[in-house]
Amino acid sequence: MSKSTLTVGLIGYQFMGKAHSNAYRQVNRYFDVPYQIRMKTICGQSQEGVSRACDTFGWEQYETDWRRVVDDPEIDIIDVSTPGDSHKEIACAAADAGKMVWCEKPIGNTLSEAQAIRDAVKKSGRPSVVFHTYRFAPAVALAKKWIDEGRLGRVYHFRAVYLQDWITDPAFPLVWRLQKSKCGSGSLGDIGSHIIDLGRYLVGEITSVVGQMETFVTERPVLESTSGGLGSATSGSAMGQVDVDDATAFIARFRNGALGTFEASRFAMGRKNHNKIEINAEHGSLVFNVERMNELEYFENAAPSEAQGFRTVQVTDGVHPFTGHYWPAGHIIGYEHTFINLIVEALRALEGNRDPSPNIEDGLQNQRVMDAVERSSNSKQWVNL
Amino acid sequence: MSKSTLTVGLIGYQFMGKAHSNAYRQVNRYFDVPYQIRMKTICGQSQEGVSRACDTFGWEQYETDWRRVVDDPEIDIIDVSTPGDSHKEIACAAADAGKMVWCEKPIGNTLSEAQAIRDAVKKSGRPSVVFHTYRFAPAVALAKKWIDEGRLGRVYHFRAVYLQDWITDPAFPLVWRLQKSKCGSGSLGDIGSHIIDLGRYLVGEITSVVGQMETFVTERPVLESTSGGLGSATSGSAMGQVDVDDATAFIARFRNGALGTFEASRFAMGRKNHNKIEINAEHGSLVFNVERMNELEYFENAAPSEAQGFRTVQVTDGVHPFTGHYWPAGHIIGYEHTFINLIVEALRALEGNRDPSPNIEDGLQNQRVMDAVERSSNSKQWVNL
Amino acid sequence: MSKSTLTVGLIGYQFMGKAHSNAYRQVNRYFDVPYQIRMKTICGQSQEGVSRACDTFGWEQYETDWRRVVDDPEIDIIDVSTPGDSHKEIACAAADAGKMVWCEKPIGNTLSEAQAIRDAVKKSGRPSVVFHTYRFAPAVALAKKWIDEGRLGRVYHFRAVYLQDWITDPAFPLVWRLQKSKCGSGSLGDIGSHIIDLGRYLVGEITSVVGQMETFVTERPVLESTSGGLGSATSGSAMGQVDVDDATAFIARFRNGALGTFEASRFAMGRKNHNKIEINAEHGSLVFNVERMNELEYFENAAPSEAQGFRTVQVTDGVHPFTGHYWPAGHIIGYEHTFINLIVEALRALEGNRDPSPNIEDGLQNQRVMDAVERSSNSKQWVNL
Amino acid sequence: MSKSTLTVGLIGYQFMGKAHSNAYRQVNRYFDVPYQIRMKTICGQSQEGVSRACDTFGWEQYETDWRRVVDDPEIDIIDVSTPGDSHKEIACAAADAGKMVWCEKPIGNTLSEAQAIRDAVKKSGRPSVVFHTYRFAPAVALAKKWIDEGRLGRVYHFRAVYLQDWITDPAFPLVWRLQKSKCGSGSLGDIGSHIIDLGRYLVGEITSVVGQMETFVTERPVLESTSGGLGSATSGSAMGQVDVDDATAFIARFRNGALGTFEASRFAMGRKNHNKIEINAEHGSLVFNVERMNELEYFENAAPSEAQGFRTVQVTDGVHPFTGHYWPAGHIIGYEHTFINLIVEALRALEGNRDPSPNIEDGLQNQRVMDAVERSSNSKQWVNL
Repeated sequence: MSKSTLTVGLIGYQFMGKAHSNAYRQVNRYFDVPYQIRMKTICGQSQEGVSRACDTFGWEQYETDWRRVVDDPEIDIIDVSTPGDSHKEIACAAADAGKMVWCEKPIGNTLSEAQAIRDAVKKSGRPSVVFHTYRFAPAVALAKKWIDEGRLGRVYHFRAVYLQDWITDPAFPLVWRLQKSKCGSGSLGDIGSHIIDLGRYLVGEITSVVGQMETFVTERPVLESTSGGLGSATSGSAMGQVDVDDATAFIARFRNGALGTFEASRFAMGRKNHNKIEINAEHGSLVFNVERMNELEYFENAAPSEAQGFRTVQVTDGVHPFTGHYWPAGHIIGYEHTFINLIVEALRALEGNRDPSPNIEDGLQNQRVMDAVERSSNSKQWVNL
Repeated sequence: MSKSTLTVGLIGYQFMGKAHSNAYRQVNRYFDVPYQIRMKTICGQSQEGVSRACDTFGWEQYETDWRRVVDDPEIDIIDVSTPGDSHKEIACAAADAGKMVWCEKPIGNTLSEAQAIRDAVKKSGRPSVVFHTYRFAPAVALAKKWIDEGRLGRVYHFRAVYLQDWITDPAFPLVWRLQKSKCGSGSLGDIGSHIIDLGRYLVGEITSVVGQMETFVTERPVLESTSGGLGSATSGSAMGQVDVDDATAFIARFRNGALGTFEASRFAMGRKNHNKIEINAEHGSLVFNVERMNELEYFENAAPSEAQGFRTVQVTDGVHPFTGHYWPAGHIIGYEHTFINLIVEALRALEGNRDPSPNIEDGLQNQRVMDAVERSSNSKQWVNL
Repeated sequence: MSKSTLTVGLIGYQFMGKAHSNAYRQVNRYFDVPYQIRMKTICGQSQEGVSRACDTFGWEQYETDWRRVVDDPEIDIIDVSTPGDSHKEIACAAADAGKMVWCEKPIGNTLSEAQAIRDAVKKSGRPSVVFHTYRFAPAVALAKKWIDEGRLGRVYHFRAVYLQDWITDPAFPLVWRLQKSKCGSGSLGDIGSHIIDLGRYLVGEITSVVGQMETFVTERPVLESTSGGLGSATSGSAMGQVDVDDATAFIARFRNGALGTFEASRFAMGRKNHNKIEINAEHGSLVFNVERMNELEYFENAAPSEAQGFRTVQVTDGVHPFTGHYWPAGHIIGYEHTFINLIVEALRALEGNRDPSPNIEDGLQNQRVMDAVERSSNSKQWVNL
Repeated sequence: MSKSTLTVGLIGYQFMGKAHSNAYRQVNRYFDVPYQIRMKTICGQSQEGVSRACDTFGWEQYETDWRRVVDDPEIDIIDVSTPGDSHKEIACAAADAGKMVWCEKPIGNTLSEAQAIRDAVKKSGRPSVVFHTYRFAPAVALAKKWIDEGRLGRVYHFRAVYLQDWITDPAFPLVWRLQKSKCGSGSLGDIGSHIIDLGRYLVGEITSVVGQMETFVTERPVLESTSGGLGSATSGSAMGQVDVDDATAFIARFRNGALGTFEASRFAMGRKNHNKIEINAEHGSLVFNVERMNELEYFENAAPSEAQGFRTVQVTDGVHPFTGHYWPAGHIIGYEHTFINLIVEALRALEGNRDPSPNIEDGLQNQRVMDAVERSSNSKQWVNL
């Protein structure tokens, strides 16, 4: 194996830690990429938790102090997959140590944190990655290709919802994702940031927004322990204030004249991971839904009028982006494969001396949009970016 | 109003009587057809029932003796919409009297009855109609057009199910549609005949069949009265034997080499009127479902491979068959419009001195297929037609 | 026929005139309503057009001067189905003459016109109707029933789009629906008003809005003649300014705390009549789309967790609102039936001495919302109602 | 890591070799199963091919002579993933050597081969596995659970199609899957066997069948080399006879009285991996389609009649079979996970001293059904099992 090796240190071992670990483990199994990934160190605060994760996910060793990972001269990539409140400190330290920063989204809990991370990365001169993985669903990659080829023409509408329902029960406890100090915002940062990224990726920059953030359940039971996980409240728990948004809706104008509508909510009963976008353009329309992520709906205006209709393209054929590397047509892939695909693209970019895309600049721009939405919700006015 | 008038006498006033009445009433409201329909007489056995139907459906007068309708010199068309056991007598008398016979399907309860009707009609030399109305769903008419144009190429598969669930409850009584003496057969004649017709219409003649007829619930409560309607059994009702099929499945070979599968059942829980067909052919595929009758699913093999997929054509645009006469694109029509469309085609045929299609010959050929299926189910062997 | 008769004079004979005529003609054929409708007079400016409509749609006589219809003492109901710029004059005259005013939506081209009509109707003391017919799709009526019964609980989200694509071609001419003087607004009034009505009907009053109106194609070919119809531009036509919105998006807050998003567009390629709403509430969710108007998607939170999912209720069974009067389960109805159903409800209200619903007050409230959206789009701020 | 280790030798490295390798590699990453899988040896005829597979898929070593793998005393499991014509020799040798036989389906190319394998396995007394992996789609596992719990009641109908389109082009060459000597049969064994297994799993044993096998394209270009892979024909290739079925349809009766229809085809244009089944039973219906394998459609007759409808259960929640081990609700899994899940079940069975299910007996019974279908197609009569 004469390939160059890239050695990874992963900070965080929960949901994202698991997904990233899988991607690092699998990427060389499916793709002939220019680098061999070495999964050296996984890091987390709980020794019991991280040691188990180390075994299960297939890392060489674990660590409980992220600084030791950042200081490890063998490590090329620091993957920041912790909750948002520690991103800035870890990412900046990693950048200062000359590591590549591969960071979960949103990159910071506030715009100023995101700015600090971007500045540190820029100063380091190293390539970076931000994990907006939905770009790498083959169907989204196909949509992007078609838009870039001009198949769609001028875009009039971008319409996006990201709907979940996991906190609709008022007895659901005040986990870290519901505490502004830990996560920065609620549905906006957690899921809204994904549809903002899809909008930027597929349509272009957003120039102004007006939005409304809502908190439907304002008090929730406090968790005994905040040691990670979703936890559960004991009956008779004290109640604490929810200080993040349960749902956020906003209207946006894009630089190219398109009109955008965005809605992120964790109060959409029955919607589990309903990240659905629609683009209406001059020559056709596209619809994508993460829950059926192997499909792209496409309306082509050039078809003979009696034969027009939205078609469901199964984006699983060898001719589609990423798909030939897994299974034959019609044999679907899942959520985890978007992470593998992202890493494929990142590795190809590194070999080509291109900065991977999306990178820390995308992370920052994403945060600027979220910040503008939040200011708009407070001021009750449109905010320019 | 200088148009020629065609005067109708309708025998039967239940479900089909209502649907036919609506079609006669509406056809001149939407289409500029060559004849003005005059709804003169509706006929039924129950004076109370038929007099109410006369008022409600908009007929000039009612009658309780069908022979008087057949004898009326003003009447051009005898529409036979009674249960199957009276078709032969009425239709033959009408034909002998020189009337046009417009007959509900299946035209007879047995092949010999169907043959007798066909012979009488042929002898009369008058045009005829059989009400296989699903041909006239705009989506089916579009499918036929595309097949005739060669857009699909050689057909490999015809796959059809007609599924309902209205008799799944074992306590549902022994209505006329469950008595062989009244209706000839069960699911086969009532709904199976529709998918046989769609197969013949879209793919061509069937040359051999092998089939299986099943009766899942063999005894049911006897109705007190058999005076029409679905009725209801009183508790403690006597039980009677079900002598028709609850479900029938058969495999068929078409003259053009296509392989057909057909299934008709009234025991498909949750399926209300699930008349769904799929055609797989050399250049593409088509799917149609009566429950979404304004849509035709179409797969076109000629599309670029990365953009292929089943598209849902909303067959509601002015460019589609029949559709420009009702409402703008996207404003759907319903079940009853298939009857109107059939009459439009029949009237146009009459003006052009063509025999309407489908006509009594189609009714007979349909019955031959059903007869072969029944014989196959008994003999446990393939039967040639 | 001992029923009371209600005599109608219909002003307008284009798309809405056709749909209303059908409803008046059919209502007594399917429903045992307390009144017999008499279709006396249809009125339009073009003698050629209205005389043909009179014959085709089944009216007793036609008229070219609406004042003569308003003055006819036999007429009980003046149905106002003209373009918006004549509503105020006709409706007020009809009300002043003591007629019932049954008016198409939006009732006026401006809030002040709507106010004037409401005041005249109120002064007349007569019952009124506004044709927000989508309330009468059986699936919507079922949704309303369930919400009123408490089956859904507190509503969190109302999400509505009404998407069409008939003016996406920049060569499409400057028809009356694109001229503010004729129609008041573009997508907002024509289709946005429908989803506003569904929001008010199902969720309740809107208290504040922020919106954005967009015109993507600002100049279009002028039509030679403005004599109604969609017309077509001759090549070399002069260009005229489009002064109405091609698309409008707005966010709304409802009195009960729900968050609403609304989007109306005629630039959504491939969407023909995509009037789709979603409600997310405490105990479940509902989705309805006019293009599949016989279906209601329903998520019920009370189902066992392993068996939860959005179900597609075919709202065609006899147990559902309005449906038992047409065809058996699974035999769908279409667009035109919503008008019939509205008239059924109106006639039942009249018999019960209730004001029909929706009535002129709903028309006015609808207009207040549209007016607020327009002001918000101009001021770039939220507007309270 | 104190877990027992099970050491695998995998014979075959193409499509199934890749899928099995992934499953062995991933199973311990997601599930806390009682055994640790050791991926020792992968075996194939082409040294170049298998050495690359060894590296890519993560095996310790490769081998080109399967007998050396069977003879390796360290190896516990011989996984037979070669084309059907070598199954018997390898599987019997492995069984004779006392190894566990884990075998791809169909286990033999003929009934007598399958019988021989079963006998050898039985004689060995070792547990066995047959890779009918679709049982382990979470949605299918859920369906099985519900049926076993009695939630569905008596089953009336099982309706299955497995449709693909990869050989519709007559220029597609005569690959091994189209040569009876290599693969035993065409669509019947390759894909039909899957739906037979789903029928047996969910409904029970089949007692009689009548079927029709069709070959639409009877001659195809011969491949230059038969060294595996799909290959491509050079122009001017000699033509060879296709001696397997392009499509097979059959009707079946189940022991419990249910009526089954089965259709497997590689000539269904636009269908890529359309393995779709429907069950209609006393208390409800189920629909499953591999192309949307994270979803189970369910109709529940016990729901209030006005709220009945087919619901789409996203089988991705922690409460569903297998699903809690991967990702949160709504984050879908793919084709490859069915193999992981099968191995989980097998390992749990081994620990519990139960024979895994499905095992070699299922493989044999599956083959009996296929054999009966083939005899029926030849004799044109029903065949009893």
